[in-house]
Amino acid sequence: MSRVDLNCDMGESFGAYTMGQDEQLLDYISSANIACGFHAGDPATMRKTVKLALEKGVAVGAHPGLPDLVGFGRRVLDISAQEAYDMVVYQIGALYGFVRAEGGVMQHVKPHGALYNMAAKNVRLAEAIAEAVYRVDPELVLFGLAGSELIKAGKKAGLQTAQEVFADRTYQQDGSLTPRTQANAMIHESERSAAQVIRMVTEGMVRTEQGVEIQIQADTICIHGDGPHALSFAQTIRQSLVAANIAIQPVK
Amino acid sequence: MSRVDLNCDMGESFGAYTMGQDEQLLDYISSANIACGFHAGDPATMRKTVKLALEKGVAVGAHPGLPDLVGFGRRVLDISAQEAYDMVVYQIGALYGFVRAEGGVMQHVKPHGALYNMAAKNVRLAEAIAEAVYRVDPELVLFGLAGSELIKAGKKAGLQTAQEVFADRTYQQDGSLTPRTQANAMIHESERSAAQVIRMVTEGMVRTEQGVEIQIQADTICIHGDGPHALSFAQTIRQSLVAANIAIQPVK
Amino acid sequence: MSRVDLNCDMGESFGAYTMGQDEQLLDYISSANIACGFHAGDPATMRKTVKLALEKGVAVGAHPGLPDLVGFGRRVLDISAQEAYDMVVYQIGALYGFVRAEGGVMQHVKPHGALYNMAAKNVRLAEAIAEAVYRVDPELVLFGLAGSELIKAGKKAGLQTAQEVFADRTYQQDGSLTPRTQANAMIHESERSAAQVIRMVTEGMVRTEQGVEIQIQADTICIHGDGPHALSFAQTIRQSLVAANIAIQPVK
Amino acid sequence: MSRVDLNCDMGESFGAYTMGQDEQLLDYISSANIACGFHAGDPATMRKTVKLALEKGVAVGAHPGLPDLVGFGRRVLDISAQEAYDMVVYQIGALYGFVRAEGGVMQHVKPHGALYNMAAKNVRLAEAIAEAVYRVDPELVLFGLAGSELIKAGKKAGLQTAQEVFADRTYQQDGSLTPRTQANAMIHESERSAAQVIRMVTEGMVRTEQGVEIQIQADTICIHGDGPHALSFAQTIRQSLVAANIAIQPVK
Repeated sequence: MSRVDLNCDMGESFGAYTMGQDEQLLDYISSANIACGFHAGDPATMRKTVKLALEKGVAVGAHPGLPDLVGFGRRVLDISAQEAYDMVVYQIGALYGFVRAEGGVMQHVKPHGALYNMAAKNVRLAEAIAEAVYRVDPELVLFGLAGSELIKAGKKAGLQTAQEVFADRTYQQDGSLTPRTQANAMIHESERSAAQVIRMVTEGMVRTEQGVEIQIQADTICIHGDGPHALSFAQTIRQSLVAANIAIQPVK
Repeated sequence: MSRVDLNCDMGESFGAYTMGQDEQLLDYISSANIACGFHAGDPATMRKTVKLALEKGVAVGAHPGLPDLVGFGRRVLDISAQEAYDMVVYQIGALYGFVRAEGGVMQHVKPHGALYNMAAKNVRLAEAIAEAVYRVDPELVLFGLAGSELIKAGKKAGLQTAQEVFADRTYQQDGSLTPRTQANAMIHESERSAAQVIRMVTEGMVRTEQGVEIQIQADTICIHGDGPHALSFAQTIRQSLVAANIAIQPVK
Repeated sequence: MSRVDLNCDMGESFGAYTMGQDEQLLDYISSANIACGFHAGDPATMRKTVKLALEKGVAVGAHPGLPDLVGFGRRVLDISAQEAYDMVVYQIGALYGFVRAEGGVMQHVKPHGALYNMAAKNVRLAEAIAEAVYRVDPELVLFGLAGSELIKAGKKAGLQTAQEVFADRTYQQDGSLTPRTQANAMIHESERSAAQVIRMVTEGMVRTEQGVEIQIQADTICIHGDGPHALSFAQTIRQSLVAANIAIQPVK
Repeated sequence: MSRVDLNCDMGESFGAYTMGQDEQLLDYISSANIACGFHAGDPATMRKTVKLALEKGVAVGAHPGLPDLVGFGRRVLDISAQEAYDMVVYQIGALYGFVRAEGGVMQHVKPHGALYNMAAKNVRLAEAIAEAVYRVDPELVLFGLAGSELIKAGKKAGLQTAQEVFADRTYQQDGSLTPRTQANAMIHESERSAAQVIRMVTEGMVRTEQGVEIQIQADTICIHGDGPHALSFAQTIRQSLVAANIAIQPVK
């Protein structure tokens, strides 16, 4: 029987500002990526989110981002590999505090936003992030874009990795996602979306925008936590996977 | 043979801003309290300071502060006990990341500035901080003002505590420090300063400003890292203790 | 014919975080207090809010707060009078930039949250804030709690002041608001709420929780921008005032 | 008689962190670029620096930077033109508050660090910054790298501009500075440094690293405020200019 993980970004509220529908989404996913205070999140939100995820049996991971709260970590910042290493160690550690305080275990680390995208292509940043994860805890699983430099760096460092795929994004022939600036970047039909992930999980293949079939490894599927349709999207993906006899479970 | 710990605040540089003489002071102390990014410090500084302290055989501790970089954590902020708990868990965790990454062990936690002072008097804040420390790691030692509510809360929580005394401050009959706003708050003569700490360590007594002798437990002595005389002060205290046959070593 | 101003806090969104219903509320109020980036708000939000208010003919004011984004400026921070002066000058100036860039005129300044409350009682903070406002622009109107130290300081500094009253709060015999920690602090019935403000505006009197009538000057009424009933509350107050033949207009 | 302005970055201290030798450097320069709290500086530092500059008869300008305190505004951040506009309006305004409060007049705006470099090459960012300056106050002078897109954008927007040259940097054939990553980027000999600026000011020519002579307009010379030799460098440049009969005065 096939299996796959469903992951979602969580804990992105900040102070008086609320974001996302964490509590409801936790019923559909198997891994939660929890913001660590740099691009989103704050200590109180981290504590509550860790507690809630553990209570619902969802695996907990750190979601480190760039130090850019006003930009939500989505703007490219020209950091050095050393700076990437340092900010990832710091943020994993901070979440680690809450996971230990709640008596849980941290499963994984998934970089956020621009840091995720930069680490997918930039070997030096990817290796610095992988080293940061490994040195804090070699048992952690590193999440990254399927086929990316970050996955390669994780393997090279000796980490278990989880290759991430997207249900609602189209793919290019080189395995990259079609940029959001292009038409056809998004898949809006939920049936097509479900069909794409089921095929990725069961056959390890995806049909690209160029009409070519390419191989892809799907260890974990990204569920978006924002947007008005986040809950129904999560529900649909989950039901389709279950109907296809695919087990939904954490990567570890 | 008597023993005592010498602790000093470290890692207070921030980005392009340099503060303190960490490298030299590490030669005189046995425990380093490392800033965690809220009142001072940043990820790069934390990594360097942890590494340096471990290399010099100095025990490493977290120095969590209020989220007030521009005020250096010295201004009282009216936080709830829950907020104190959350910010302490976060900051211990963040430093923990670097300690693990460097292969070391964290010895202790000492709150900084206004948080230290608030926790000395406010039972609810003291208990929240002690609980935060205990839940992240019950093996950590909690540093607090000798005789303070924080020390009581640490003991109640089941933590090892270290009672902190000051060489260059005078004491009141109730065991509190003479406020800096008053004359005679500071001891400027290094001989008198050394005599005070030696007596506190060996006899457990100090003579207050009121001329009364009171009991005080001196597990660790605070060495100030700033000011033009920081190095010579550290040197004098250390030499005086050694001359008095007092061993200088970490609390654990 | 009587007149009064209706003011509301605005521009409290931050980056990807949305707060409030500014666009709709601007249809009911005559003065907008715009956050300046310390407790809430960011440059983009400030620009949009200034533009929107000017387009709708609503008078624009600065809403400076404590530097505590995660606490939304609601936690008391023990600042000096000099620090209060500096943070108010900075924040008025920042908003001033956007008002000038949009070709408008700034009408007023109203401190936010804990700064507002501290300035209501603390003479030195009140005078520092009044001086800050006066030195940036003596034509600005200073908003403060009716009868507070801030109003007194504003008058002493030579500023036009606007005494603020609350429709949904009860009053104590000394003119202060009943603390939210007490029962009966809030008025939940919209009719009673409307009746209270109409009487304050037309007769300059309010009946306190002690059953005593006291004098109160009502230049401007605070409309809350948050909460599920913000819009209907604003609508009700406005309709009641209009029905009572009271003109709603800015203070200048 | 020829004339030129000497400008220097100022007000870069932050809270407990001190940077630069502002007070002494103000004796040598004619224009001060004052940090506005994003890459460096805080409200108290801004007030003190504005006051000191006005007392010494030095023209005051805003020095807006990227919102990156830990990186001192030196790291490229991928901002939109709208974001550049917003952050410049905000920061000019904030400094404007202090200039008005001290009874002075703001002369100019010079972007800092990565924002300065990005605006030198990126037309859209340059135009957004020029528009921000113009809309806050069309009388402000825009400082930018001599021959850069920022200077062109300033002229197009209708602003007075000041073309900035460097005494201690070598030039490339296209008028750009030799990148610091290359050997020969810096001029270390003070005589050669002085000769270069005198020739730029009096003849409008500079000899590039390629051995070619190119035209350059030198309205203002950048004096570095940091480094151990900042003061002696400023002194040498000033003396050389005076000896060459060149008047040192603000651009306006």
